[in-house]
Amino acid sequence: MNSRIKQLTATFAQHKIDAFLVVKDVNITYLTNFPASESWLFVTPQKSFYITDFRYILEAQRGLKGIAIKQYTKSIYQTLFETAAEQKIKSIGFDDRHITLAQYRTLTEKCPKTIKLVPTSNLVENFREIKDTYEVNQVKKALKVHADTLKFLKGVIKPGVTEQDVFLKLENYVKSRGCGFSFSPIIASGPNSCYPHAKVTNRKIKNNEPVLIDIGIDVNGYKSDLTRMFFLGRITPLVEKVNASVREAQQIAIAKIKAGISVADVDREARNSLAKNKLDQYFGHSLGHGVGLEIHENPRLSQNSNAILKEGMIVTVEPGVYLPNKFGIRIEDMVLVQKDKGKVLSGNID
Amino acid sequence: MNSRIKQLTATFAQHKIDAFLVVKDVNITYLTNFPASESWLFVTPQKSFYITDFRYILEAQRGLKGIAIKQYTKSIYQTLFETAAEQKIKSIGFDDRHITLAQYRTLTEKCPKTIKLVPTSNLVENFREIKDTYEVNQVKKALKVHADTLKFLKGVIKPGVTEQDVFLKLENYVKSRGCGFSFSPIIASGPNSCYPHAKVTNRKIKNNEPVLIDIGIDVNGYKSDLTRMFFLGRITPLVEKVNASVREAQQIAIAKIKAGISVADVDREARNSLAKNKLDQYFGHSLGHGVGLEIHENPRLSQNSNAILKEGMIVTVEPGVYLPNKFGIRIEDMVLVQKDKGKVLSGNID
Repeated sequence: MNSRIKQLTATFAQHKIDAFLVVKDVNITYLTNFPASESWLFVTPQKSFYITDFRYILEAQRGLKGIAIKQYTKSIYQTLFETAAEQKIKSIGFDDRHITLAQYRTLTEKCPKTIKLVPTSNLVENFREIKDTYEVNQVKKALKVHADTLKFLKGVIKPGVTEQDVFLKLENYVKSRGCGFSFSPIIASGPNSCYPHAKVTNRKIKNNEPVLIDIGIDVNGYKSDLTRMFFLGRITPLVEKVNASVREAQQIAIAKIKAGISVADVDREARNSLAKNKLDQYFGHSLGHGVGLEIHENPRLSQNSNAILKEGMIVTVEPGVYLPNKFGIRIEDMVLVQKDKGKVLSGNID
Repeated sequence: MNSRIKQLTATFAQHKIDAFLVVKDVNITYLTNFPASESWLFVTPQKSFYITDFRYILEAQRGLKGIAIKQYTKSIYQTLFETAAEQKIKSIGFDDRHITLAQYRTLTEKCPKTIKLVPTSNLVENFREIKDTYEVNQVKKALKVHADTLKFLKGVIKPGVTEQDVFLKLENYVKSRGCGFSFSPIIASGPNSCYPHAKVTNRKIKNNEPVLIDIGIDVNGYKSDLTRMFFLGRITPLVEKVNASVREAQQIAIAKIKAGISVADVDREARNSLAKNKLDQYFGHSLGHGVGLEIHENPRLSQNSNAILKEGMIVTVEPGVYLPNKFGIRIEDMVLVQKDKGKVLSGNID
């Protein structure tokens, strides 16, 4: 049994379960280092089982180490409960955010009377939010390619070029580095930048306007996520003022980060800073989010969360101000939470 | 109110609901023609509401026609039930396959006592599985690009070239046509073809071996999905025999297709045909699936389904024989179900 699965089974007593059903692909990948697809992982303290079908069985046999493989034909539920019975399991935990109501009903229907189903939340995610050295290094590798990509973009983003042109060149560059994107790139010029999740358009980039570039690079499943503003020609006083305010809010929020601080406090810090410049009303999203195997993962840096920052978390800090029909400014960096401070992993990337 | 939403509200009485909550993005896109993202559509017989947050509100205001827009800040559930109360709704239907158990619990908690929540299944999908003329034409457009792409690949797939090389050239070609993929392409050479969902590798394609190419092209959200075998050099008698058997099984299954036939019958026809050549044991997946806004949608052509083919469905027919550690052969076409026959939309594509 590998150390990640051991970490998980060590929580079973606390949750009053003696097995755990993992249905979310990325959680299976985290636990097994195998790129799971449409399959389940059934973890017991003695042994883990990968339950899959004909389409994936050969890859699983080749790629999974230390995990028993079960092939189902008609019903994945039936194979699950047969395996549970063989292992004399009495209670199975599962994450109630990862199964649909319809799946839950089928689980309940097919579940033998001797087995109890126990809804839980975040069992695997609680481990995933703390990055080990390997994981931090993968994110750093992604950031290295990200830095080079931004340098490349400096030669591409010019007045007269369309957002779509930039996108195609960007995509070719990232591919030439052997990487992919962690999400669909945002290349938002001029007024398009006031849409926080703008789609790439055929708009021609003009002189004297801001261009918002929010991209992420994927390396071995781990992701970077940074937003940078490009300014072409002259910067108007309003753009300059908003940019300076967003930058200040970000710096103040980052200065607050260390292990033990609540995410709501960090979010509030940025919001209060923008409020001093009467810009907080234009900052409608939360301050940031964890990044790792998923582009958005725990913790969320939000007023609505009561999460506490812990050593080893990697979070984005990305305040933004969006002036409708004018422009938007967002600045996003990635910060590793340490015992006494936040270490900006992307600090040298401009 | 547009005709698709009207079609949906016309089913309300039958399901004893007076409103319907759509949470699945692609179903919202189908009903509104707007590329929904992390938002809900609440449909009442009089009016529909798009419930979204700050990040997407400007796009929604610009892009949604004939739909009221509600912005939520803290809780999408609260805004949903406030809207329901305003509209004097007594019962809300939702699809139990599209909400998680955790979401269902929150829905139940926040739901006022005056409103009943009614789990349903496939309300929107039942319409989506029948394609109208516009939709059939989009699929035909995707198939046109698909045909050109296969012609292009004939100049690319040669002994000595790696699967990854083929992938990069394929990707550039599809992009140069202004299209994207409907799923991650399968380019499986020699023994790799025995994995039904093979990943692209660095393996060099050799002479005298089969190469399985399973790709899909996306045009305006509608998708093609075809598998073609490329044979380089000499074909061994075994490959030739298996290929002829798979082709025969496919033709026999297609000949069975018309409105009113059960999908299990069509699947069985292909399986029986392969059994005559003692190859059915190597055909472990189902025969096919519907294609449209999603690459896999209703109906599934499977032994386990009791669905009946209806006029206007578009389905794949894709028998396959996978000989472990040797090679796999799959041949996949797209068929439009008509009153008296199946029309092979991809018949002229080789």
